[in-house]
Amino acid sequence: MKTLVFGHKNPDTDTITSAIVYASLKQQMGLDAEAIRLGEVNGETAYALEYFNVEAPRFVERVAEEAKDVILVDHNEPLQSANDIDQVRIVEVVDHHRISGFQTAEPLYYRAEPVGCTATILNKLFKEHGVEVSKVNAGLMLSAIISDSLLFQSPTCTEEDKAAAAELAAIAEVDVNEYGLAMLKAGASLAGKTAKE
Amino acid sequence: MKTLVFGHKNPDTDTITSAIVYASLKQQMGLDAEAIRLGEVNGETAYALEYFNVEAPRFVERVAEEAKDVILVDHNEPLQSANDIDQVRIVEVVDHHRISGFQTAEPLYYRAEPVGCTATILNKLFKEHGVEVSKVNAGLMLSAIISDSLLFQSPTCTEEDKAAAAELAAIAEVDVNEYGLAMLKAGASLAGKTAKE
Ligand SMILES: [Mn+2]
Ligand SMILES: [Mn+2]
Ligand SMILES: [Mn+2]
Ligand SMILES: [Mn+2]
Repeated sequence: MKTLVFGHKNPDTDTITSAIVYASLKQQMGLDAEAIRLGEVNGETAYALEYFNVEAPRFVERVAEEAKDVILVDHNEPLQSANDIDQVRIVEVVDHHRISGFQTAEPLYYRAEPVGCTATILNKLFKEHGVEVSKVNAGLMLSAIISDSLLFQSPTCTEEDKAAAAELAAIAEVDVNEYGLAMLKAGASLAGKTAKE
Repeated sequence: MKTLVFGHKNPDTDTITSAIVYASLKQQMGLDAEAIRLGEVNGETAYALEYFNVEAPRFVERVAEEAKDVILVDHNEPLQSANDIDQVRIVEVVDHHRISGFQTAEPLYYRAEPVGCTATILNKLFKEHGVEVSKVNAGLMLSAIISDSLLFQSPTCTEEDKAAAAELAAIAEVDVNEYGLAMLKAGASLAGKTAKE
């Protein structure tokens, strides 16, 4: 049975790409993991996925029908998670938010750091496990950092996020500012369109 | 103002030594950290501290009178923590237990792993931060693993705990079985004495 990896409802770029990238890392470490999503992919995220030629994760409404074990990324609060989160075992969490309402019956791997983006932590995890970061995974993690930090302008952005972004941009072979502005614009323009239509 | 580092009430060897060792790592990383304890040191822990010539941490009843920021080791549940834990900011947790009742207002560093002992995680953190493990810190971490795993007999003991213990025993220059049995016996015999007296 697969272990499902997912971020929060109303997914943003960090939630979608962190699910994809962490599922990829876990697969490379031998776990049968699959990234899924709990909601619609927004325009900004769609731009990033298309740019790096990656399909969006499958939408799943009830995770307990498909898995016993799940991994949460980019969130921990039950209200932001799958509606049936209480019916599965959370075996891991990788997150950068405050902890609230989170509860388990058993010990687990929980990795939170006070940085601006889940992807910044994932970039560390690749190093800790000695797994090389592919060009695609680097592009996805970079996209998450750009999104959560609003191209390094957000007050939550740390030096670690900036350093990770620079590293990942080199692997992804993109110009951070050029790519970042185009990605943020894609989110803005799609949001605009939706409002008008 | 110092950052206080402490484990749970009714401290065991992992709680006391993890507070000492993690405070030492944080000091070496430049933080003004101090290990404290929330209760009496038991006979087993006293044996380990004396063997490696380390003083027991200072007893503190109300942490908020001395610190704004605290680091929890070997526990996360508020009921096991300082009575006034709600009056300080928990900036880090390093633990190996299930998460229950834990809550923060802000993002933090939270590191839990499903292993048999906090010290096994601390041993990793030294590596991640590129800080060398001293002979004393190795001895203290080894003592914690021996204690929590009952010399590797406990069902909670993992391969990671065993590997960490072997590494640490080499640095501490002790025979694991000989030292471990003596340490566990010191706890047992002191407990016996206390009951009689
Ligand atoms: Mn998010
Ligand atoms: Mn995020
Ligand atoms: Mn303990
Ligand atoms: Mn312990």
